[in-house]
Amino acid sequence: MSGRPFCSQAQLALPDWVALEVDFARRYPDDRSQMTLAITLAQRNVEQQTGGPFGAAIFAGDGQVVAVGVNRVVAESCSLAHAEIMAFITAQTRLQQFRLNANGGRYTLATSAQPCCQCYGASFWAGIDVLLIGARSADVHELTEFDEGPLPEDWAGELTRRGIAVRQDVLREPARAVLAAYRDRGGANY
Amino acid sequence: MSGRPFCSQAQLALPDWVALEVDFARRYPDDRSQMTLAITLAQRNVEQQTGGPFGAAIFAGDGQVVAVGVNRVVAESCSLAHAEIMAFITAQTRLQQFRLNANGGRYTLATSAQPCCQCYGASFWAGIDVLLIGARSADVHELTEFDEGPLPEDWAGELTRRGIAVRQDVLREPARAVLAAYRDRGGANY
Repeated sequence: MSGRPFCSQAQLALPDWVALEVDFARRYPDDRSQMTLAITLAQRNVEQQTGGPFGAAIFAGDGQVVAVGVNRVVAESCSLAHAEIMAFITAQTRLQQFRLNANGGRYTLATSAQPCCQCYGASFWAGIDVLLIGARSADVHELTEFDEGPLPEDWAGELTRRGIAVRQDVLREPARAVLAAYRDRGGANY
Repeated sequence: MSGRPFCSQAQLALPDWVALEVDFARRYPDDRSQMTLAITLAQRNVEQQTGGPFGAAIFAGDGQVVAVGVNRVVAESCSLAHAEIMAFITAQTRLQQFRLNANGGRYTLATSAQPCCQCYGASFWAGIDVLLIGARSADVHELTEFDEGPLPEDWAGELTRRGIAVRQDVLREPARAVLAAYRDRGGANY
């Protein structure tokens, strides 16, 4: 290991196509339109071969996109770089808020599949008010070999009790279709 | 929100003093010496007023330091920037491995306090073999107002069953002392 320098910083980046894919001037007024963006990002990430079959987006109360994320674990050599985490850190960088809703706004995270144990835990501190979930963990398990990890038994209730509303099965079938497409391409599981 | 640019990347950095504090040529051969470094980093982070009272370090099998982390949530405007996460991402950047032990090595994370729900979840994917914990969650709760979040009931067993050995109460008293020092300084809780 000697010779390799100590790293005192790290950078995480989204693929170049993301900036072209997302219309930041548009409003996404409801659960379905918000989830459609998250699923589209997941699908594009598979098509562009820039990461795993997962997408996420954060919306302000007026329906504008604050930030988006796609899975970048392999490209960024970072186990943190799941879609939800990429959305959280780029949203927080943009707003310069370590807890998004500390500025008085209301924020929604739409994610194409149920958060794994890492992204679930991160959701408590990021400052979101609503969590929209497409595919279930069971779908991820059925259609891919991605590991979702252990959660508290009443995982959704834990979020709700801390003021984060959870709405599941939002466009579940299209969300499942992206997972199946990734499997059919022989995408790596990690 | 209009006018603020979309962020397609984010950067997380450790304080400047870290590079001077850690001797990367030294070997830390056992649990106590490894935990001593994690606690020292936590203490220095409090003294330097560069973040919360939490420190972490990752060691290779030969006892060399791979990477370190301290809490940087406020300074980096990022809810992810807990000590353990800072250590994971800088270690993975240094080794260019999204799962540290995929290179055949064995890695230990020493953390001055029990991981919160976010860092707990991240520990499953980072590629560590051993998790050393100083202060308990109950200590964090007793001595500060930091929130540790919900964990699975048998949180340690979940790690062990996935091949990550967990050793708790390693230098618990010195680890508690850093939390108490932070409280006595009137440090912010977030």
